[in-house]
Amino acid sequence: MNVKIPRGTQDILPEQVKLWQWIEDKVRHITKKYRYEEIRTPIFEHTEIFQRGVGDTTDIVQKEMYSFQDRGGRDLTLRPEGTASVVRSFVENKMFGHPNQPIKLYYMGPMFRYERPQSGRYRQFVQFGVEALGSADPAIDAEVIALALEIYQTVGLKNLNLVINSLGDIESRLKHREALINHFKPRIGEFCKDCQSRLEKNPLRILDCKVDREHELMKTAPSILDYLNEESQEYFAKVRQYLDQLGVEYTVDPTLVRGLDYYNQTTFEIMSSAPGFGAITTLCGGGRYNGLVEEFGGPETPGIGFALSIERLIAAMEAEQVEVAFDDQLDFYIVALGDKAKDYSVKLLADLRNNGFSADRDYLDRKMKAQLKSANRLNAKYTIIIGEDELEKGEVQVKNMESGEQKEVKLAEFIDVVQKWSNRKEK
Amino acid sequence: MNVKIPRGTQDILPEQVKLWQWIEDKVRHITKKYRYEEIRTPIFEHTEIFQRGVGDTTDIVQKEMYSFQDRGGRDLTLRPEGTASVVRSFVENKMFGHPNQPIKLYYMGPMFRYERPQSGRYRQFVQFGVEALGSADPAIDAEVIALALEIYQTVGLKNLNLVINSLGDIESRLKHREALINHFKPRIGEFCKDCQSRLEKNPLRILDCKVDREHELMKTAPSILDYLNEESQEYFAKVRQYLDQLGVEYTVDPTLVRGLDYYNQTTFEIMSSAPGFGAITTLCGGGRYNGLVEEFGGPETPGIGFALSIERLIAAMEAEQVEVAFDDQLDFYIVALGDKAKDYSVKLLADLRNNGFSADRDYLDRKMKAQLKSANRLNAKYTIIIGEDELEKGEVQVKNMESGEQKEVKLAEFIDVVQKWSNRKEK
Repeated sequence: MNVKIPRGTQDILPEQVKLWQWIEDKVRHITKKYRYEEIRTPIFEHTEIFQRGVGDTTDIVQKEMYSFQDRGGRDLTLRPEGTASVVRSFVENKMFGHPNQPIKLYYMGPMFRYERPQSGRYRQFVQFGVEALGSADPAIDAEVIALALEIYQTVGLKNLNLVINSLGDIESRLKHREALINHFKPRIGEFCKDCQSRLEKNPLRILDCKVDREHELMKTAPSILDYLNEESQEYFAKVRQYLDQLGVEYTVDPTLVRGLDYYNQTTFEIMSSAPGFGAITTLCGGGRYNGLVEEFGGPETPGIGFALSIERLIAAMEAEQVEVAFDDQLDFYIVALGDKAKDYSVKLLADLRNNGFSADRDYLDRKMKAQLKSANRLNAKYTIIIGEDELEKGEVQVKNMESGEQKEVKLAEFIDVVQKWSNRKEK
Repeated sequence: MNVKIPRGTQDILPEQVKLWQWIEDKVRHITKKYRYEEIRTPIFEHTEIFQRGVGDTTDIVQKEMYSFQDRGGRDLTLRPEGTASVVRSFVENKMFGHPNQPIKLYYMGPMFRYERPQSGRYRQFVQFGVEALGSADPAIDAEVIALALEIYQTVGLKNLNLVINSLGDIESRLKHREALINHFKPRIGEFCKDCQSRLEKNPLRILDCKVDREHELMKTAPSILDYLNEESQEYFAKVRQYLDQLGVEYTVDPTLVRGLDYYNQTTFEIMSSAPGFGAITTLCGGGRYNGLVEEFGGPETPGIGFALSIERLIAAMEAEQVEVAFDDQLDFYIVALGDKAKDYSVKLLADLRNNGFSADRDYLDRKMKAQLKSANRLNAKYTIIIGEDELEKGEVQVKNMESGEQKEVKLAEFIDVVQKWSNRKEK
């Protein structure tokens, strides 16, 4: 048998996992500073969660979901994004009644979309996202945007563009919707099938169409910003004021409508402007979704969040050639020669590990030279050499791999001595 | 809409995630000491991977898999365990050719089995597991067992039983198989349907049957230990010798055959003997699976590993009432009163976070008393109070929440002062 990994998915191998772990540590540290707490929802949900939460007219729900029936006949779907699940959990666990409002959550885990695989796009990909539920303060919009930016800056990215927009409240959106229909209707026949069906269902999404992006009516389409009512205008002005106060640079782009149905008020994207990053430059997208909690049967609750793909973040790091230094040294490698020494090394290895050191040994019965090579390749700080002679004398040879210095150490004193050498005592 | 979480799955909410993160940190630290490196394989694989890798006659493959077709007609299955995927990746990525042999891997992530949900058993659960591929040294069997035990000891469990057994090599297994068939055949009609079909396919698994465990033939069944050839006997003796050297206590149980088809030589389980832990006491199971890599089209490669469920580990911690102290303090909470102070706090909050502190503020426009309550509930070390008066004077009030001490601090000096107070400067 030689069955391969499913198309569009990837194994993250040990050499690559180091970078993932490094990024995840940075991300978790940032969430702690901003007091966002982790939530873990299941990999699959009832399909209805996404039909309702993401939106029936979206590409995700119409074309990209991994849906199936379980052995009990339930319609389930591998989660294509995180917000709908988090809001489902928020309602089901009655978090709206928790004293610490707003509820500030983050998630990090695999998502699934059946798309055409291409460079940096996978059918299983890892999203990090935050959701702040329970506050309609424009300061939290600024906080969420600042958190997203800090992640990219912390991993070393420099070529970043923040684009923001406002979709307004429901009143504003309805007026704009009418204007859009009036604008496109007379010539809708010139647009793609998807846009034709969008005209009545969700005309805003015509602006997001990849097929018709060059059509002349696109450039002259009514701008949402001209249809914001006073309250929505004030809200958007406040968000911009806070971003200015934080020294965050941004561009306002009235065509930024985002692919999901649930957004209103603030929307934003962070793009990479790194040369060679490729045609799709969006790294991160988010926005406000007041109303989504009610859609899930909860009380009226404002919300805002964003999501980003770790795969695309890594692709941007590669495009900018960001270099990361990992601590991947091994404290000790044991070179044992002969059966007695090998047997003895079982205990010695355990002693080292029990004292908090990372340690390994040869498990292939190889000659001294091959074992020393392993010690080098594994980036060992110290190599311990045990032969029959040393054992009889009750000693081991300890070699500092950096300085080349080699010492004989009494076995009885061994742990004490190496602890002094390396100044590490944490278990 | 009020759609619930899928049956048999759970949300891990922020209060619970803290324990999960604590456990995961401990586990990662231990893997580093033993030099096992993380690998991440996809959530789903081609179904054939598990049919071949786990075994067609197992309950998992016959009854418990989440299998479905994707939009391209591929037969996929949500992974029910980790070993088959890791071995698939080992072969596909030609890790057998990597210079650092044996390859020592670990994984930690969700697995899926359609079982009847019960206390501590979920349809989605998180497994941690290790696989050491490329060495047939009995010392690595002892290392793998010691690693598993260290995890349980490190999280504070005391009531642990290690049970080991040997299934021998292929020659030994074939002889034992014959003896088993001869033993059960005359009275197989008294056994359950599953056992009847197991008789020819895999008679060893009759010993594992939950339905017929009390049948008198079970107690008199031929023991594998009486059928081990010399080599297998020596191998098992060596594993026990190493465990003795490490001071690890264990029981040998010749009926320990494990539920998966791929095991040979060493098998082991760790059980909890904590009172009140429940009927199913197994926490962790593993064993040697020489031959599995060839099954997946790779070269002859010995392997050994184990898997454990984090949910069951947590259940055992609960049964033993292990208490864990988390560091969940917030460095600063800002109480802002009035519009100007609120606007100002946007910048102050960012300054604190940019200096490496965790910090939060009120986002609900609440009165002073309610804001101070939040500071308390969030376990803040310091509360910063900003009113209109303070702002005009260019000052803030900083209250040490533990000592109750309150100071006026000049805004211009603020960050310097609080850094001295808290002795934390890392960004």
